[in-house]
Amino acid sequence: MAEMCVGIDLGGTFIKFVATDRQGSASEILQLPTVTGDGPEGLVEQMVRGARKVMDENGLSSEQVRGVGVGSPGPLDLEAGLVIASPNIPGMKNTPLRDMVGDLLGLPVALENDANAAAYGEYVSGAGKDADDLVVLTLGTGVGGGVVIGGEVLHGAHQIGAELGHMIVVPDGEPCGCGQRGCLEQYCSAKFMADRTMRRMSAESPQTSLNAILEANGSIDSKDINEARAAGDAFAAEVWDATTRHLAMGCVSLTRIFDPDKIVLTGGMAKAGADLIEPVRRHFADLHWKMTEIKTEITIAVLGSDAGAIGAAGVAWHEFGS
Amino acid sequence: MAEMCVGIDLGGTFIKFVATDRQGSASEILQLPTVTGDGPEGLVEQMVRGARKVMDENGLSSEQVRGVGVGSPGPLDLEAGLVIASPNIPGMKNTPLRDMVGDLLGLPVALENDANAAAYGEYVSGAGKDADDLVVLTLGTGVGGGVVIGGEVLHGAHQIGAELGHMIVVPDGEPCGCGQRGCLEQYCSAKFMADRTMRRMSAESPQTSLNAILEANGSIDSKDINEARAAGDAFAAEVWDATTRHLAMGCVSLTRIFDPDKIVLTGGMAKAGADLIEPVRRHFADLHWKMTEIKTEITIAVLGSDAGAIGAAGVAWHEFGS
Repeated sequence: MAEMCVGIDLGGTFIKFVATDRQGSASEILQLPTVTGDGPEGLVEQMVRGARKVMDENGLSSEQVRGVGVGSPGPLDLEAGLVIASPNIPGMKNTPLRDMVGDLLGLPVALENDANAAAYGEYVSGAGKDADDLVVLTLGTGVGGGVVIGGEVLHGAHQIGAELGHMIVVPDGEPCGCGQRGCLEQYCSAKFMADRTMRRMSAESPQTSLNAILEANGSIDSKDINEARAAGDAFAAEVWDATTRHLAMGCVSLTRIFDPDKIVLTGGMAKAGADLIEPVRRHFADLHWKMTEIKTEITIAVLGSDAGAIGAAGVAWHEFGS
Repeated sequence: MAEMCVGIDLGGTFIKFVATDRQGSASEILQLPTVTGDGPEGLVEQMVRGARKVMDENGLSSEQVRGVGVGSPGPLDLEAGLVIASPNIPGMKNTPLRDMVGDLLGLPVALENDANAAAYGEYVSGAGKDADDLVVLTLGTGVGGGVVIGGEVLHGAHQIGAELGHMIVVPDGEPCGCGQRGCLEQYCSAKFMADRTMRRMSAESPQTSLNAILEANGSIDSKDINEARAAGDAFAAEVWDATTRHLAMGCVSLTRIFDPDKIVLTGGMAKAGADLIEPVRRHFADLHWKMTEIKTEITIAVLGSDAGAIGAAGVAWHEFGS
């Protein structure tokens, strides 16, 4: 029986578990609820329970598991294996998550930031499988980032690197929750695109089919905007176009900086698929320099929300596989 | 006698030569004119002549030289050791510079892009000596970039990475020679700051002491602008402030992306020293997010125009030192 690594993706609602082989082929994903009532100890017990279950389901003894990777929301102290704080999980404060899980499981554990783990998942088993250098943008509530360069995850000197959603793309632009202005995520996240659109609707009273949806639901989301656009709504089309153009502009900057093989889009907004990628590619070609032809491909992620668990297992392979 | 590596910085006007030890301590710099009349062969002969001279001056036999690093203007094919083209050196076209120099010298040669070599020089022996992760911005005619992450130079998948001067910082901003709009270098290079200022003077006829300089010299440069600012000229002060603020904005984005220990400013404009760094740091603190305190230090390079040769020798140490 071949050896495997176990990956654990610690989310605010669910914990996902997977086992992968050295090539990145993944078992079925196991999903358990994130228990938060019993503090870090209860959470760690749930993580260990899930890891053992995924080992059982795949007929793996402890000897056949090279190591375990944990993708956790941050901020983390990767060297010490600590979760410094976690807004969604009460009681997590300088919690030695790596060693708590490792001691209970009796296996070596590697800790990684959840966004980086997801990027690494796409790198080893997803849209970036044939890439050396990869940039991942997660277009969800905010815009998260992950960068893999020659197989290594970019962390930064203080482990707060790859915060690609907080590149400044509009000087003195929209105020961001981080304290900056004009951050990429204010223009390109699913949530903030919808928020800005609702503010515009309130200020400009445009003729748009989105008015009825806003009235009925109390809010609109990025899917509503794209559906209105597809149905021929001119206001929604303008919003969608401006969003994809801002995103393309960010991709041009990331291409000049990293010159990656691929930029992979994931998160809620990436569910729009071709409706997102086609205008982004068109704007990218238009905005990209003319000094060289386009060599960086922009594409949609293939692992979706499983990337974090698969990437966490990949991180374990990276650390314990040799 | 300790072993050394030789560094060669191939510029459009001069070739610089140096020998460094494993710790990055450098010999005196030797400078020879860049001969272009005899094509690549004549240039390579000059490079070999200089390398031998620097070896002589430091009492180094071939056996005491671990290797030679060459920093060359690009674009390069690093894997094949080729200069694909060089606008300033006629006849350079797919020239196997690495092997031509290596064959004549009888020593192993490593090739690196000149901007990356300069960044690596600051990393091993200059302002970044105590840094793991370093970003270097060269504020000259254009804005060049170099990035070192954990001791490795960032090249990108197609060797056109770290083109930090071509991050888009103003949507649909100033047209750039590269074919994009709003590139950082249009706002922060010594040349383009002066060009933009002259265009403004022609369009707005401001009351400024720069008028007399423009009339006398036919042009103004970044030094004129800083000197006028220092002497109390309000127009020059506004130009200088806007430039340093754009630069700080670029530094915020680079901090979010790389989270480096340091961002090092070099090139013509960095000669302004504290006049540059103080307003850049002030704007940086103002524009930087509030999620963490500032951990990235912005500073002026210490090696100046010797960084390229010292860095080229460092590249040779990196490749042949172990």
